[in-house]
Parts: sequence; C-alpha cells; structure tokens
Amino acid sequence: MSLLVIGTVAFDAIETPFGKTDKIVGGAATFGSLAASYFYNKVKIVAVVGDDFPQAFIKDLNKHTIDTEGLQIKAGEKSFFWSGKYHNDMNTRDTLITELNVLADFDPIIPESYQDCEYLMLGNLTPQVQQTVINRLKNRPKLIVLDTMNFWMDIMLDDLLATIKMIDVLTINDAEARQLSGEYSLVKAANKILTMGPKYLIIKKGEHGALLFGEGKIFAAPALPLAEVFDPTGAGDTFAGGFIGYMAKVGTVNFNNMKNAIIFGSALASFCVEKFGTEKILNLTQEEIAARVQEFVSLSKFEI
Amino acid sequence: MSLLVIGTVAFDAIETPFGKTDKIVGGAATFGSLAASYFYNKVKIVAVVGDDFPQAFIKDLNKHTIDTEGLQIKAGEKSFFWSGKYHNDMNTRDTLITELNVLADFDPIIPESYQDCEYLMLGNLTPQVQQTVINRLKNRPKLIVLDTMNFWMDIMLDDLLATIKMIDVLTINDAEARQLSGEYSLVKAANKILTMGPKYLIIKKGEHGALLFGEGKIFAAPALPLAEVFDPTGAGDTFAGGFIGYMAKVGTVNFNNMKNAIIFGSALASFCVEKFGTEKILNLTQEEIAARVQEFVSLSKFEI
Repeated sequence: MSLLVIGTVAFDAIETPFGKTDKIVGGAATFGSLAASYFYNKVKIVAVVGDDFPQAFIKDLNKHTIDTEGLQIKAGEKSFFWSGKYHNDMNTRDTLITELNVLADFDPIIPESYQDCEYLMLGNLTPQVQQTVINRLKNRPKLIVLDTMNFWMDIMLDDLLATIKMIDVLTINDAEARQLSGEYSLVKAANKILTMGPKYLIIKKGEHGALLFGEGKIFAAPALPLAEVFDPTGAGDTFAGGFIGYMAKVGTVNFNNMKNAIIFGSALASFCVEKFGTEKILNLTQEEIAARVQEFVSLSKFEI
Repeated sequence: MSLLVIGTVAFDAIETPFGKTDKIVGGAATFGSLAASYFYNKVKIVAVVGDDFPQAFIKDLNKHTIDTEGLQIKAGEKSFFWSGKYHNDMNTRDTLITELNVLADFDPIIPESYQDCEYLMLGNLTPQVQQTVINRLKNRPKLIVLDTMNFWMDIMLDDLLATIKMIDVLTINDAEARQLSGEYSLVKAANKILTMGPKYLIIKKGEHGALLFGEGKIFAAPALPLAEVFDPTGAGDTFAGGFIGYMAKVGTVNFNNMKNAIIFGSALASFCVEKFGTEKILNLTQEEIAARVQEFVSLSKFEI
C-alpha cells in the first residue's frame, strides 16, 4: 500500500513584493509529496529532472521517507524551469520564463515496486501524462486526486475531460471551476462538474478557503487569515498533497474524512506561503501542524 | 430597552440578469429593521420619506412590531430613490440614478420614547447624520453597530473617522477595509482599523462569507453557496440588522455571541438575495430561519 505522487520536480525563480529568489527547487510533486509525508510514510514519486538537479534535495525527500525510485534523472538534460513575478495582491502573477526541458517528452514510468499504489495524486501536468499514469497502474487506486489548471482547459480541453472522467477528486480554483463548467454560480458549476466524472470536487478559493462538493453535500473550509503571504508558489500542490496524505492515513474514503483532509491540507498550505519555495514545509514538526490545525478549529467553530 | 435602526427608507429600481423592477421599497433601515424584528420585538426606526411612500408598507413594518414614530413623512416631498444595474457576476453594479430628495436635508429627530435605546444600528448614511444620532441619545447605547461604504471614504473621510471613533462594531466589505486601512492583508487592515475606535470589525466578503475581528481573536463565517442570487440589494443591511437583532436578543456583548449573531445575520441575508427587494424577508417564519441556520452549521462543521 502506498501513495503515489506524480508531477513536476523542478526549478522556480520567484519574485514577490517581499523579495526575489535565484533558482530554487519547486514543482507540484515536490510540494505534494513533502506535504503528504507528514501524514503517511509510504509516499512515492514519479517525475523527471535533468542532471542539474541537486542530489542533496533528493536526499531531503528521502529523509521524509519519500521513495524516489520513480524519479528519472536525464543525463545531459536540464530540469523544468519556471520563473514568475507576483503582483502586489499576491493572487495574480506573470509568468516570465517557462523552459520545459526534460518535461517536453516526459514518459511517466511506474517502477514495479509502485504497483501497490492505493492513493494517487496527479499533480498539474498535461492531461495525457496524467491519464497514462492511471492506465499503467495494474490495479485502480482506491482514491485518485487530480489537480489541473486553466492552461489545459484552454489548449487541450478534450484530453482533460477524458482524464477527469477517470478520477475521484478534482481540485481547481474558483475561476477554473467557472471556466470548466460555463456557470458563474459555484453551486451550479459544481453540479455540472460532478456529472463529468469526479465524485468529489474541491474548489480552492485562496484567501477565502475552499469548498468541497460531493455526496449531495457541501463543506466550506476557511482559510487562515495571514498577515503576510510571503510566496504563494506551491500552496495548491501542498494543499493537495496534505489532503491525500491525510486520506491515506485515515484509510476510508468518505465526505467526513475529506472535510478533515481539507483542513489538514489547508494547514500545510498556510505554512508553505510563509517562506520562499519549500523552505518552510521541509522542516515542520507534528506539533506545529497540530497547533496550526487548532487555529483552523477556533477560527471557524461556533455553537448554535 | 429598545433597538434603534437609522438609515434610509426609500425606493429602489433594480435590474439584474434575472429581471427588472419598477420602483420598489428598499433602504438600509427597511432591510435592517425587518431583519432585526425576527429576533427582537422592540425595534424602532428613525428615517425620512416623502408623501409618495406607501402607507401600506409602513403598516407592514408595524406588523413586524417595528415602531415607526421616528419615521418622518415630508409632505409635498419625494422619497430617496436609487436605481442600479447588476453585472452578470452579481458582485459589481452600476448606479443609474440617485435622487436624494428628502434625504438631502435629513435631520434625524429622536422621539422621546426612543431614549431607552440600548442597541443602535447606524445604517449607511452620511457620517455626520450617523454621529448626530449618537449625540442625541441621552445614554450611550450598550452596542453601536455602524455600516458604511467606500463612497464616504472617498468624499468625507475625516467625518467618517470621527464617527467610527464613537462606535463598537464596524461592518464594511473587504475592498473597503483595504481602502480605509491602506493595507492589502485583511489581518493587517483589521489591526489598523481596530486602533481607529471600534472594538470589533466585521469584514463582509459576499459569497465568501465574513470575518469578525476583536478581543484578539478572529472568526471566519462561511456564506451559504447559492445556486441563484436573484438580487443582492439590501443583503448587507439585512446582515447588519440580523446581527444586531440577535445581539439584542441575547443581551450580552462578547465575541462568542457575535459569532452566532454573524451566522444569524448571514442566514437572513441569504434569504434576502432570493427575491427582489424586501419580498422574501417580509414573510419569513422562525422555522425557516432555524432551518437555514442549520444549513450554516452543517456547511462549516468538522470534528478534529
């Protein structure tokens, strides 16, 4: 039994109103697997990097009990690189550079030892690669969570629709839910998206929290109001990784467990944005996470 | 002991993607007093109308046990009139017509029988008129809630700042909190605003719910995800009225009671937007309100 995370392992260069980084390690599978590792100790990744990627960081992943057998290292090639600049509101950003490099012809090879996968997080990637991973698993995982973005809706909607037919939980933001459904009301958008395949939909609303739809129910999770958002990069991946890591820990897929999984995912994401890149989520303690989750409890609890 | 609501009693003409109205009754004091009346039976209003205002509607207010002794009716003059058109997102609107009419020289006269006021809702009006009401009350009310908007921040900030020094709870939306404080982070904005006088701040975020700040604590209330928002006019006034009505009912001013008051206010507001104008909140039952509040409970409850 294991939790497989697929996505990018890559370099980011980030500029925010608070500062600027050189190339630092980022990527959906990086953030997702690190977040999941706080709840579950059989996290495995499938990703591709060039030989410019630091061995030391792979060791950091391994220290988090993350299995990197499925991390392909392409000799003589370069890792995926993204550079972006956040605006003052920290909600919008401009992409400055995208260098696909090794990602251009990424073939997600699943090691034989990964075939015990019960929980699958498909981090943001081309829908075809996401679909290939599902097809290459001999047993259909118990829970498949897919994260995607507007970019794939713009340029390969048919592939995306084919892929989300095969999954259990879709995580997108509110603008993407509106785009995918053609409905402005998020309730109508969710109802429509839930006819496209997924049994559950999580709509991420950044500083406004998240909504979970499924089983005819709705759950509204708050976001922790933060004085400073230092760098939002990776927050969505961290959220998804924390979510599926918690689900793997509890082991039963239902709406109630997903509510808690959203709170734990949100707690991890709230740490992620406090520093650049993976700095904060590389070094959390269980005590810090428990305290942060309690902040979510007191933030939203009322007794009527 | 009574709850005084001051604000406009007026006509609105509204256009939304769902339809269009002729002149219908609206106004902050109308929505606010009706909402409060579901929780407290000593609601009194101070407002001004022209003799074009329908007597039948005043009777409707009285049926809700709302005392209209302080409703001035100016012979030969016309009631305040606002006309607006909502965009497709229902969050933004254009003002088409504003006719101040009787509001231009509104002098808020407080009947002697209103001097038992313990709870005061200052609905959106010029800051000077709001301040005059406070000054004319012989005893300082136990709880003063003030609702305002960006318009007064734009054109008479000094008067507004002088008035909010005198109150307990300020209710504004997120854009207004950012404008008033000059801070983008709502946590920083709230901290700054809480140094300006109010002990509590409620930031209304529309479809994203509301945040309550005060006593060093934060509460995040969800909004009910709605399939249809028919007409948002009056939702903020209804929220404020429901909030203070509930506070008057429980009688003790503290953060915990305010959390529930926000849920009750949000429940009333969620009804308000289901029909044009006051149509829905004129005819609610306690059972409907209790059921709606339970929807808020199940929407946001989780057990960790």
